[in-house]
Formats: sequence, C-alpha cells, structure tokens
Amino acid sequence: MATSKHSNYQLWGGRFSEQPSEALQALNISLPYDSRLYADDLDASKAYAEALQRAGYLNTAEADKLVKSLELIRYDWIERTIKFLPSDEDVHTVNERLLVEITGELGQRLHTGRSRNDQVVTDMKLWLRRGIRETLGRLNGVIEAAVKQAELHLGVLMPGYTHMQRAQPVQFSHWLLSHVFALREDCLRLAELRVRANVLPLGSGALAGNPLGIDRLWLAERLGFSGVTANSMHAVGDRDFVVDFIYCCSLVSLHLSRMAEDLIIYSTKEFDFIRLHDSFSSGSSLMPQKRNPDSLELIRGISGVISSNLTGIMMTIKGTPSTYNKDLQFDKEYCFQSFDKLAQVLDIARGVIQTMQVQRDTMEAALSPDMLATDWAYYLVKKGIPFRQAHHFIGRVVALAEQRGVGITEVPLGELQQICPAFGSDIASVADYAYNVQQYDVIGGTSTGSIEEQLRLLKNFVKDLRKQS
Amino acid sequence: MATSKHSNYQLWGGRFSEQPSEALQALNISLPYDSRLYADDLDASKAYAEALQRAGYLNTAEADKLVKSLELIRYDWIERTIKFLPSDEDVHTVNERLLVEITGELGQRLHTGRSRNDQVVTDMKLWLRRGIRETLGRLNGVIEAAVKQAELHLGVLMPGYTHMQRAQPVQFSHWLLSHVFALREDCLRLAELRVRANVLPLGSGALAGNPLGIDRLWLAERLGFSGVTANSMHAVGDRDFVVDFIYCCSLVSLHLSRMAEDLIIYSTKEFDFIRLHDSFSSGSSLMPQKRNPDSLELIRGISGVISSNLTGIMMTIKGTPSTYNKDLQFDKEYCFQSFDKLAQVLDIARGVIQTMQVQRDTMEAALSPDMLATDWAYYLVKKGIPFRQAHHFIGRVVALAEQRGVGITEVPLGELQQICPAFGSDIASVADYAYNVQQYDVIGGTSTGSIEEQLRLLKNFVKDLRKQS
Amino acid sequence: MATSKHSNYQLWGGRFSEQPSEALQALNISLPYDSRLYADDLDASKAYAEALQRAGYLNTAEADKLVKSLELIRYDWIERTIKFLPSDEDVHTVNERLLVEITGELGQRLHTGRSRNDQVVTDMKLWLRRGIRETLGRLNGVIEAAVKQAELHLGVLMPGYTHMQRAQPVQFSHWLLSHVFALREDCLRLAELRVRANVLPLGSGALAGNPLGIDRLWLAERLGFSGVTANSMHAVGDRDFVVDFIYCCSLVSLHLSRMAEDLIIYSTKEFDFIRLHDSFSSGSSLMPQKRNPDSLELIRGISGVISSNLTGIMMTIKGTPSTYNKDLQFDKEYCFQSFDKLAQVLDIARGVIQTMQVQRDTMEAALSPDMLATDWAYYLVKKGIPFRQAHHFIGRVVALAEQRGVGITEVPLGELQQICPAFGSDIASVADYAYNVQQYDVIGGTSTGSIEEQLRLLKNFVKDLRKQS
Amino acid sequence: MATSKHSNYQLWGGRFSEQPSEALQALNISLPYDSRLYADDLDASKAYAEALQRAGYLNTAEADKLVKSLELIRYDWIERTIKFLPSDEDVHTVNERLLVEITGELGQRLHTGRSRNDQVVTDMKLWLRRGIRETLGRLNGVIEAAVKQAELHLGVLMPGYTHMQRAQPVQFSHWLLSHVFALREDCLRLAELRVRANVLPLGSGALAGNPLGIDRLWLAERLGFSGVTANSMHAVGDRDFVVDFIYCCSLVSLHLSRMAEDLIIYSTKEFDFIRLHDSFSSGSSLMPQKRNPDSLELIRGISGVISSNLTGIMMTIKGTPSTYNKDLQFDKEYCFQSFDKLAQVLDIARGVIQTMQVQRDTMEAALSPDMLATDWAYYLVKKGIPFRQAHHFIGRVVALAEQRGVGITEVPLGELQQICPAFGSDIASVADYAYNVQQYDVIGGTSTGSIEEQLRLLKNFVKDLRKQS
Repeated sequence: MATSKHSNYQLWGGRFSEQPSEALQALNISLPYDSRLYADDLDASKAYAEALQRAGYLNTAEADKLVKSLELIRYDWIERTIKFLPSDEDVHTVNERLLVEITGELGQRLHTGRSRNDQVVTDMKLWLRRGIRETLGRLNGVIEAAVKQAELHLGVLMPGYTHMQRAQPVQFSHWLLSHVFALREDCLRLAELRVRANVLPLGSGALAGNPLGIDRLWLAERLGFSGVTANSMHAVGDRDFVVDFIYCCSLVSLHLSRMAEDLIIYSTKEFDFIRLHDSFSSGSSLMPQKRNPDSLELIRGISGVISSNLTGIMMTIKGTPSTYNKDLQFDKEYCFQSFDKLAQVLDIARGVIQTMQVQRDTMEAALSPDMLATDWAYYLVKKGIPFRQAHHFIGRVVALAEQRGVGITEVPLGELQQICPAFGSDIASVADYAYNVQQYDVIGGTSTGSIEEQLRLLKNFVKDLRKQS
Repeated sequence: MATSKHSNYQLWGGRFSEQPSEALQALNISLPYDSRLYADDLDASKAYAEALQRAGYLNTAEADKLVKSLELIRYDWIERTIKFLPSDEDVHTVNERLLVEITGELGQRLHTGRSRNDQVVTDMKLWLRRGIRETLGRLNGVIEAAVKQAELHLGVLMPGYTHMQRAQPVQFSHWLLSHVFALREDCLRLAELRVRANVLPLGSGALAGNPLGIDRLWLAERLGFSGVTANSMHAVGDRDFVVDFIYCCSLVSLHLSRMAEDLIIYSTKEFDFIRLHDSFSSGSSLMPQKRNPDSLELIRGISGVISSNLTGIMMTIKGTPSTYNKDLQFDKEYCFQSFDKLAQVLDIARGVIQTMQVQRDTMEAALSPDMLATDWAYYLVKKGIPFRQAHHFIGRVVALAEQRGVGITEVPLGELQQICPAFGSDIASVADYAYNVQQYDVIGGTSTGSIEEQLRLLKNFVKDLRKQS
Repeated sequence: MATSKHSNYQLWGGRFSEQPSEALQALNISLPYDSRLYADDLDASKAYAEALQRAGYLNTAEADKLVKSLELIRYDWIERTIKFLPSDEDVHTVNERLLVEITGELGQRLHTGRSRNDQVVTDMKLWLRRGIRETLGRLNGVIEAAVKQAELHLGVLMPGYTHMQRAQPVQFSHWLLSHVFALREDCLRLAELRVRANVLPLGSGALAGNPLGIDRLWLAERLGFSGVTANSMHAVGDRDFVVDFIYCCSLVSLHLSRMAEDLIIYSTKEFDFIRLHDSFSSGSSLMPQKRNPDSLELIRGISGVISSNLTGIMMTIKGTPSTYNKDLQFDKEYCFQSFDKLAQVLDIARGVIQTMQVQRDTMEAALSPDMLATDWAYYLVKKGIPFRQAHHFIGRVVALAEQRGVGITEVPLGELQQICPAFGSDIASVADYAYNVQQYDVIGGTSTGSIEEQLRLLKNFVKDLRKQS
Repeated sequence: MATSKHSNYQLWGGRFSEQPSEALQALNISLPYDSRLYADDLDASKAYAEALQRAGYLNTAEADKLVKSLELIRYDWIERTIKFLPSDEDVHTVNERLLVEITGELGQRLHTGRSRNDQVVTDMKLWLRRGIRETLGRLNGVIEAAVKQAELHLGVLMPGYTHMQRAQPVQFSHWLLSHVFALREDCLRLAELRVRANVLPLGSGALAGNPLGIDRLWLAERLGFSGVTANSMHAVGDRDFVVDFIYCCSLVSLHLSRMAEDLIIYSTKEFDFIRLHDSFSSGSSLMPQKRNPDSLELIRGISGVISSNLTGIMMTIKGTPSTYNKDLQFDKEYCFQSFDKLAQVLDIARGVIQTMQVQRDTMEAALSPDMLATDWAYYLVKKGIPFRQAHHFIGRVVALAEQRGVGITEVPLGELQQICPAFGSDIASVADYAYNVQQYDVIGGTSTGSIEEQLRLLKNFVKDLRKQS
C-alpha cells in the first residue's frame, strides 16, 4: 500500500488523482484548532480498539498493542516531540499516522467501522466535559472572591441605583452579591448541559450506524458517558452541545459586562466608590496622571467577541443539510475561542474583585435625603394614606425641595403638612439610612440578616461546586 | 388627590412639572407588546393583595374587594371592552387604573411595597410558564406527525447523504427521525428552563427588597413557584430567563431550517424524493407551471428572524448597569416575536410533514452501486485486509469504474483482483441495498430494528410530554 | 375565467387543486408589512403600463385607462377605503385585484412580461429612496439641534474623559460635536447608498429577463433611476440595498447609543453635568423622588434591536440559492422595523438635545489639577526634557500628590525639582484650564477657533443636506 | 530615568507602583494581533518626526536620525530579527522601545504631542488602504475567472431556478455572471469606503487635539490622506471605518455563500451540472467512493465567521462612552480575522471556478417542457388573451399534463383548445429552448447578445479595478 512513513498520510485518497489545492488546504487544515483534542482523540481510540476486540475484529494482543501505542503517542504530545507534516489535516490524521508509524498494518485496522464523523463529535464531547469543569472552576473562583469581599464589607452602605439614578440605600455587599447570583445561574446552566450532553455518539459511523456488532453501551460506560445517541444521522450532524456551551459562555460574558460597567462607573473620579488595584489598571502614553480601568473595559468589550461566536455558529449551522457538512468544522474555532477568552476574563474578574479597594466613606457620603423618599411614602402609608397617594405627596415634597436646592429633610413640617396633613413630627425619625436598610429584611432584601442568608447559600453552593469539578 | 377617573392615570409624576414628550411616548409605551400579560399581571396582583392582608396592610374585606375587582377586570380583557387611554403606558398602569376606577382609594393601596420592577419580571415569569407549555405542545405536534410518517414508511430506502453527496443507503424513516431527535433535545432544554426559572421575584421591590414583612415563600407557593429569588438587586435586573427562552426558540428554528433545507432539495425535480402538498406550496405570478416550496423557505428563512432576536437581546443587555434600566423593556418585543414566529413555523412544519408525499420509487431508484463502497471495504476487512488499506483499494475501484462510466459492480473480478487479490467471487453478494441496511443494527443505526427502537423511545417521550404540558 | 370579483384573487393557481393551508397563510401573507409600498407599487405599475404601450402590447387608450385607474386606487389607499380580502397575500395582489375590479380584462394585461420577482424589488427600491430621504431629514434634525446647543455653549469647559477617567479639559461644545461628526458620516453613507442602489430592476422578469421588447432605459428614466440592473438573475435575488440600508441604520443607532451612554452618566447625581428635561424623563412607580433618563436608555437599548435586524437579514440570506427564494420576503420586516425604530429614536435624540440643561458650574467644578498633567509634561518638554521622560516625571508627581491627598498644583516647587530639576517657578502659570484649552488650536482641536471651524463645516453640511432631501 | 535597555519598556507607569497582573496582561497584550501594523506604525512615526521638526520641536539632524532609525527597525521586522519582551504590550511600544534602544533620549521625544489614541487609529487607517487594495485584487481574481468561464461556455443552456424549482431556461453563463454582479457591487462598496475613510486622525492627541502647532494638513498629504478628521474627540474613538470594512467583507462572504450553495446543489449526483476538480474536493475517512465539495462548504460556512465579526464589533462598540475606551482594542481581532478568512475563501472561490467542469449535456438534458410554460403564456398573450388569464390557462394545461405524467408538449391540441380556444397548431413552434432563450434580449436578459454586453461591462470593470489596485 502506498502510505509510506513520514509522507502524505491521508485518511482518504484512493479515488483521487490530485492533491488538494493550496488555497483549500490553507482553510481546510484544522490542526491548529483541533490539536487540543489530542488526548480526547487518544482516549476514544483506545476505547474503540477494545470495542473492536470485543466484537472480534482484533485479538487481545492486537488490541493491547494499539492501546499501548496510543499511550506512547500521548507522551509525544505531552513532550511536544511530534513533527507535523503538511498533509496532517487534523488531529485525527496525526494520531492515526503516528499509530501506523509505530504499529504498521495493525494501526490501519483501528478505523474499522468508525468514521471521522462520529470520531470528531466524540472527541468534542470528551473535551466538553473538561471545558465545562474548568469553566466551573473559574466561575467558582470569581464567586469565592466576591463572597469574601461581601463578607468583609458587611454593613457598608452605598446608594443603590436604578436607571443609574440614586434609588434607595443598599449595602455594598448586597450589590456585589447581585452579580454573583447571575454567575451562580451560569453554573447551573453549565451543570445541566454537562448532564444533557453526556451521551456517546461513537458507533454512528459516517451516518448509517455501525454494522460490526460494536457494543455502544459498553463504549459509553468505558468513556464515562451516561448513554448513547439514539439516531446515527442525527449524531454525526449535531453540534448543539457546542452551541449550548458557547451560549453559556456568552451569558457569563454578559453578566461580567454588567458588573464591569458598574465598576467602571464606580471607579470614576466623580463616583469614587471603588479603586482598582494598580495591577488591574493601565496608564496613558500621553497623559501622565491617568489610571485607566483597562481590565474592566476588556471584560466589557469581550462580551461582544464571545456572544458573536454564538451568532456565528448559529449562522454557520443555519440551513445546512442534515448529517455532516464541512461547514460544521468551524465549531471548534467558535468553541475554543469562546472558552479561552472567557477563561481570561474570569481570571481578570477574580483578580479585580480580590484586589479592589472599597471606598466606604465616599459611598456613604453619597447617600442623600432624596433616597429616603420611598421610606417617607411608607411612613404615610402607615398613617393610613393609600400608597399611590403617598407616592404622589412625596413626589411633590421632592419637587419642592429640589426647587429650593435643599434635601427633603430640610422642608419644614408646616409645609409638609400643607402637602399632606398626615405628616407628623415623627417624620424626623425616618432619616437614618442604616436603620432603614435593616427594615428590608425579606428574603433577598438588603438587611444584614438577608445578606448573611445569601452568603450562607453561596458558600454551600461553592462547596458543592468544588466537589463536582 | 389628582387622579381623576378616565384621565391621565400615571404610576408616578408628583415631582414632574411636564408630561413626557410625544417622541418619547411613542417609543416608551409598551402596551401593544405587554398587553398579553394582562392575566399574569392580574394573577400576581391578586396574590399580592392577599399577601398585604396577611402582612396586616389590608383587612380581609379590603383584600377580598381587591381580588374580586381584579377578577372583574379580567372579564373586561376577555370581552375586549377596555378603553385604553393615551396615558396607559403599560399593562400594569391599565390594570391599576381600572382597579382604582372600581375601588377608589382602596386600589391605590395595592402597590404598597411593590415596584413595577418586581411586578413586570413576575408577570414575565408567569407568562414564561405558559409560553413554554405552548411551545412544547407545538413541538409535540411536529414530533408526532414525523413519528407517524416514519412508522408508515418503515422499510423505504433512500440514499443517505453527507456533504450532499450520496454516502450510504439509509431508511427514509431514519432520516426523518434524525430531525425529530434534534427537536426532542429542544423539549429537554425547555423543560429544564421551566424548572430553573421557576423562582418568584415578587417582593424584591424596586431593588432593595420589601420592608413590610411580606411573606415571599407564601406568595411563591400561591403563584406556583418552587422558590424565591435570592437577591433583590439581581432579581429586578435579571432577564436571563427571557434570553434562555429566546435561545431555545432559536435552536428550534435552526433545527427546522436544516430539515427545511433537506426537504427543499428533496423537492426539486432533480431529486423528487418528496412532493409537498398543494396547501404548502405556492405558485408564481409569471410562470404558470411553478409549484414552489414557500412553506419550507419561510421555515428556513425565519431562523434568521428568531436567532437575531437572541443577538438583539444580548446586545441590548450587554454593558447595562445592574438592576433595572429601561433598556430591559425591549425584552418583551424580542421574546413575544420569537414565540409567535416559532409558533407559526412549528404549525407549518407539522402540516408539511403530515401532508407530504413520499416518492418511494424515486428514492430507491437513486441508490447507486458506489454507495456500496463502504460495505465493499468491510468485505475486504472480513478477508483480513486492514481497514485503511481496504478503503484505499475500494477508492481505486471507484476511480476505475467512474473512468469507464460504469458502476463498481460492473468491474470484472479479474480487475478487482489486480487492485486487491483478496477479492473473491462472493463480492457479488454485497449488492443488495435492503440487506446491507439491515446490518446497521447497532443502537441508533438504520436497520429496521434500530428504527423501531427509536420509534418506541419517541412515543414514550411524546406521551410524557403530553402529560406535562 | 374563474377570477370573480371580490373573491379569492390570486396571481397564480391554475395548476393548483387546493388552497394554501391556514398555517402557511398566516406566515406567508405579507400585506401587514408591505402595504406601505402601495404608492411605489402603483408608480411602478403606471410606468410599466406605459412601457407595454410603447412596446405595442397595449394601445394608447388602454394604457391611459390603466394609468388613470391606478391613480384611482391610490386615492382609495389614501382615504383608507380599501377592503382587504383574506386572499390578498401582498400589496401587489391587492393593487392588481383592485385594478381588475375597475378595468376588467384590461387589468389582467398589466402583468404581461412582469413577475412579482422584479416588481417587488422595484417597489422596494422606490421605497428606499423615500426611506433614505426621511432618515436624512431626521439626522439633519439631530445635527441642527446639537449644532445650536454647541454654538450656544461655546466656552463652557468640562473634563474630557478617556476610559471614563478624567483626561484633559475640553469644551462642552467640542464633546457634543464629537457625536455629531459620527452622524455626519452616517449621512454620507446613506447618500452614497442612494446613488449606488439607484438602478432599476424592472424588466428582469422572474429571472430570465423580458422577451417583449420592453425599453428598460426608458422605464428607468421615467421612474427616476440612473440606470438599469445588468443581469436579471442577479436583480431578482438581490437584496443588498436593503442590507446596506439596515447597516446604515445600525451604525446610526450605535452612534446614538454612545451619545446616550455619555448622557446617562453625565445625568447621574454624581456627575450632574446635564439635566434632562422633564418631558424626556420618567418616574418610578415606587420611589417618588426618581427622575429616570428613560429616553436615553431606550436610545441605547434600541441599538440592539436595529443591529440585530442586520444580523437577521444576513443570516436569512446566507446560503440561499441564487435568484428569488421566499426567504427573501423577510427583508421587509427587517427593513421597515429598522427604519421605524430609528425614526423614533432620532426624534427622541433631537428632543433630548434641544431641551437638556447644561450644568456649566458643575462641569467646571469637576476640572481638577491632575488634568493639567499633560500640559505639565509639555512644560518640561519645552524645557528640553524628552517627552517620554517628562511623562514619567509628571507621573511621579501625580503619585506623590495622590499619596498626600492633594492636587499636583499643591506640591511644593522644591519637591518637584527633586523629581526633575527642570521645574521652575513658572510651572505655576500652567494652571488655567481655560487658557490651556485654547492652545489646542490644531484642526479638530478643542480651542474656540477650532470649534468655530467645526460649526462652520457642519452648518454648510446641513444646508447641503437640506437641499438634497 | 528608569527606562533601561532591554527591560520593561512601557509608555506609561510613572504613577504606578505595581505591574499589570498576569491575568490582565494575557488579554491586554495586543502584539500578536497588531504586529502586522508595524510598517504602518513606522510610516506614521516617520511623518510625525518630520512634523515635529517643522513645528520646531526637533532640529533637522534629529528628525533625520529618527527617520533613518525607524527605517532600520523596518528591516528588523522584515528580517524577523526582533526579540519581543514580555512588556511589549503592542506594536507601538515595540517600535518606540527599539527606537530608544537605537537613539537614546532622542527617541523619547518622538511621542511629543502624540497619543497612542491617535497613533493607533492612524495606523489602522493606513492598513485599511492596503487591506482594501488586496481584497479588491482578490475579488478581481474571482471575477476574471468567472468571466473567462462564462465566455468559454456562451451558448450552454441550463434550467434557471427560482425557489430551487425549474423556472425558465437560461444560459449557464448568465447564471454564473449573476454571482459576479454581486461581487462587482462589493468592489464598489470597498472603493467608496476607501475614499470616505481616507482622512487623517493623527494630530488628535489623546482626545483634545494637539497644542504644538503641528501641521495636520501637511501630515495628511505626506501620508496620502485626502484630508484630516474634523473633531479630535470623535477621531480617537471612531472605529466606523473598521466596522465598514468588516461589513463589506461580510457581504462578500454572503455572496460567496449563495454561489457555493448553488454549486453544492449542482454538484450532487442528482443534478450533476458541475464537477468540482479533485483539488477542490475531499474524500471520506470511511466511505471510499466519496468526493465531497469541502471547498464549497467551507466557503458557505465561513460567512458565519465573517458576519459574526460584524455582529461582534457592533456589540463591542455599543454603549461605550465616547472617545477611547479599551473595548475598542478588539477592533483589530475582528478586522484582521475577517480580512484573512475572506482572503482564503476568495482564493478558493477563484480556484473552484477556474477548475470546475461544466457538464453541458446533463444541464441541457434537464430542460423540461414545463419550463416552456411562461413562453406558452406569452403565445396566448400574442393571440390577444390577457396575461393573467393566459397564466391561468397554462396552469391548467400543466396540471393536466402532470396528472397524465406527460410533458405539456404532449397534450393534444384538441384538449388544449378545450382549455383555451386560442391555442392553434403553431403552439408546436414554442418548443425550442435555445430559440426561446434568445428572445430574452432586453438589457440584463439571458440572450447571447445580452450576455455579451454583460461580459463587455465586466471586462471594463476589471480593467479599471486593476488600474486602481
């Protein structure tokens, strides 16, 4: 047979009289992207060798030899001693070429009944498990950092904003944990995906299945899957688990973008609620005084990169015929870039949170009497005024105060009573931000008790997560 | 108080001296979009009235009066007798205005401790449960239609394609079910979302929580939620469940686009595997003979519409500060358009599948000897040739046959043996497509047994789904 | 012939034995979207009637009758007296049906040699000219409003920001015009599109062209096009001009989103540079004191809606076969929604700019000594210090000042000289923000002269634009 | 001063006490992306050195020394002899570091009055000119290849399709050129962008402009720009020209995706209109007979990659505050990936077209009598039947023929006359596809004369384009 060592090993070609054009090869070769699948490919191949043996297509010695040789190849990958050839179009070709170099004809038997179509999707599913585990680990890191800061700063008040306008006093920790709860949902999504996707496609062949009596259930167990795919034509053309993963990454990146936006604004001189650590800031080439929150802007900006990978893979898949089409090859670029970029920003986010300086004094100085307006309305409610009317009365007080350039606490009682006779001198008592905050003691509220409950919940979550990943 | 009947009812305004500009109002008013939430809004309001009573802010008679009045308003919606005012900026305003029209001051007490921020997200979550249930119902309809067709046509062979090139013979039912399995995963995704999202945000107030001793766990149980949100600032700014839902819809639309693409190609004169029913075809204004698969093209094309809603909501959310910002209002347009459009194409898809005519003769006539190549390679494997060599030899046979313009079954044995001496006269037996197909009897394969197993699995799935929805 | 008045008028159907299914019809019917093309459709039909007459397929009286009848139909549209039938699938069907109702058999001759394929793309191109003109008019409105504000506030200083950190003092007008120059580019893009797209597709038939000797160049001139499309198969399947238009709208929306973001931040209590007018603010249902910049948040958020229409149309078009496919029908939803939404936010943007209150005192109070750092570096450069060293020295001064909690202007000269001996007592003169700003007198700089030049440029631009639109 | 040779050269840092964190650095360092700007950066720096000299900040010898040293650095880049340091965060830092290594203090003067903000956008604009030129060159290559094939195959008929259903006979060349005309528009778009974007941002400083009397108009002329940007704050935060470029690339990729889709379908065994060359096909690892159109699938699939870069950059830019924010750094990844990927598929597309085999016999055999239907309708029109009626009559003929399983040409005259009495025996003459095609001789039609005109137009276009690029 024509396959000489160290030359042009191709998984196909008997019927072809010419080699791929350079232009095609430049785009077609996926090795730069899929080489990170080498271990997954070896694992799946080892299992497949054993399955061939169990089905009677290899004897025990042969299967053994293949398994051991595949292990040798793993070391070459780890030691980075593999010499790639121009004809190595993907990681599967490399691994099979190396196997044939070691084992000769025997290696040429491994692909019996297997197609790259079911092979590549199996490798990707093995990778996915690792990808999810590592992402969960990094999410965990961010959550832990934030929980720690939240715990440390319990009791620190700040203005809570809606529409970026001062709304009601809240605790800094409450604000910080609001971002954490979004990330917690991301962990749940990833964990669900891990379970849902964990079914083995191997044994689907090119599209029709496997006619050699391969035991797919055994293969699944051997490779840690909880089941097998149910339809071979679906299995080889399905990349939904990749789309799902990129979707999860996109959502994480969106959550981080919102946190970054808050922090960018809080880091302005005008707010000055947060000071970023030097190690997460950059300077200007022209303006010597600048300390720019580059880390946060990169976090915010990269959400476009990751989310657009989702758009991209959806667009690439849209309208393709069923089973395998080459368009699907781009799944790896989309997927690995999303994973890598997200890993980077998660690491940055953890560092930013760990090292940022919380400017308690500035935050608390930013609390202003107008933020008591809602509590003033509740005051009137307790005097029997329907809420909607109370809201309206306080609105008029606010307008009056603003017109005079004073806080609502400075409007004389007499004038308050002109707006609503229910005002009494006890309105003066609704003026202590710290006291008011403690009244929001419902589940999820901003009282210290509620936040402590949130912290408990998150710490248990983190503990469980660490066990899983 | 200034709120007169039938005029300008606003939930706010005490501190404002001027009305919203017309330009702003044109965009701001969400009633055309959110009016479909009317029942959810009433349900949540009823529960909140009871919660206020339980917390001591209303007496039993008052709560009762509110609940009954809210029921009256429901009838007005159903009967379409509500007169909207220009100042009705959203469904919440309409419902509160109507309530105040019925109950006077009492109605003005309902909003005590509640904010539109937690109200709207609660309503959306109630809607989501319905939206998911209906979507699952429609998915079920498509699956059932396809299962029925697959069952009916068991045994019909067709060329299986990869890269749109003839690959191996498969059963028509196997192909059809390959699309169904994608839709089954969509159902799983939606079902997971239904569980994950089913936590109540009500009681989060504008952002800080609720200071009135409202019992959120009771509210959750009353409204059918399995728990409550854990952080009020997160709860009011969170639209992830909407994004998740649009994501699920997008994936469904992508799956349908791939099925439509197959069917469009199979409906060409050149393939002629499938004939669409007249009722799912359209004609041409110029060319009298045309029967165009408009239904399928609309299915394919709409995947862009639905998926771009996902891109859109992600882009809208990206980089917004935490808690509620008005940008979030667009969630409803994105969500409801996705739901509506998907409903339309699911209905079309079901109809197309139910009514399409399967051209058995054309399909089976399209099976050609080159599609036996893989089985020929297995033949050599069984003679002891390593698969990769067998693949290469058959490749050469194919090239030779093609060069001569004949099928591989027409190459004389002598010449076959020149390519590989292992060929014997028994190669002639590897020529029966129907027989070969039955060998693919692994789980997920294209043998009749495997397909029957798939049908069993799907029928159970459909049954379970129907119970849930 | 079967086409009776007031019933089921279809442009096709002779070969069909059944009507479209309801499910298909629900999605297929484009009348709700394309009815806004009625006038374009009538104009193109009038011209086509004349072209048929010139080609000898109608006599003068017949052509005249058609033209006049089409004019009558126009009035019915304007007066809204048309009764739509369930079978009216699009605006073209309606217009032809009405024409046949008026003229009988004569109306049935109008479609000779024309296809809906070239008809619809012609109508869209006619609409595009109007769509561009109106959008340019609205852009003009925003530019004028901003130019007026910039002119009015010439001389008002504010901190210029990069990375949202105080960078250098600039003029408020300079900042405001920076957004205007982005919109000016948008106008250029739209104007280029108007010219590039202005070639007539009519006469392309369904795909093969027109075999009746129609004079396309005459048609083009008659309808105000500068030429005709060069390939009929391309013409009927081409929607690039729609994609281009949506792209232009998307970019405008992005520019507005950046301006809105600035303004949202500048409207916070913490910055307080800008106060939005009541008519562009909204209140809170719970918090009586709130004045939220809803107008700006809607502007920011809608950029997701419009940009996702671009993603959507690209995804819908991607991978469709050439010439006309029904997928292309969605072009209208994408296009008109983008146009409408952009119109709304442009109107809001104009109003916001016209009515916002510029808080000169707060802006100027926010100028801080660290913003002189760059000018201090230039001071050292003028003393012969290489810029990069000067930058470093000033960086150290800033760090020192920050450490002490003072401005750099408060560091004693002696200590400055310890950092860099080139400091002299004249450093005290580099301390007047207003004076410093005037030094930036290069083209495009923030000096008053430079800004006046910008205003001149923009006023001329606006004048030219008004002439065109 | 602290900047020692070969260590940690940073453009900033005086005020910082700690280095960037590793996590931040990993994402922040843009050298892998922006190193391709090295020559643009050197060109702009040379011009800036001269401008500093003209403004009196350098003497002639100094400027000369800088210019010559920058030239030396260019050679190092070309020879790939530069050793990058971990602290080299971008190409600008590398170039300045190398300059300082060569010229000492003198090099530290180059950045006087310049900021990375105006530097990077200037470099990108210089790159854009090259990027556009190269892209136009590659588009030209595809157009030329297609024109050549179209010329060679003039007279070859094929079925023209709409909705992938046989519509009317057209010429193969007409079909091929329909794709070319889309690419021609892409060239126009790029050429317009080249002009519109060709204004110089240098001299805008960090945001406020330049206070050193730099002559921007001279700089523009020196660097081949036609003008200067008009507002410095706009200039440093503007990446629209990058978005525009990615948009143009996206549209090209969409056009290629449609051509690829046609070719994939035409390459199926069922159509067999086109045979791809071996060098643009790939085989299967399992199925020896496969010849897959991988080249075309990659072309089709990559449109998702390129278009999603557009979505990504829009999302990244959306809602960022004005002037420079670090988010903008991602412009380069989006831009260069789009450029590179498009270059690859344009090269593949050219090769595919050049080498594909046109299966004239199969194409012409696919012409079927139903495709005469439109011409039959015109036959009745010429007999005086209104077109809409003629359309209906022919529709009935088609239905009748289909019911019988014959072509419309086989329906006996008597039965035709029962459907419409206007049929005469001369209907038999409307049966020659080649003759019919020639009647479509309007501009843009499928007659040979019309196609020759298209070829003339395109050849002139190509000639003009080659002159420009």
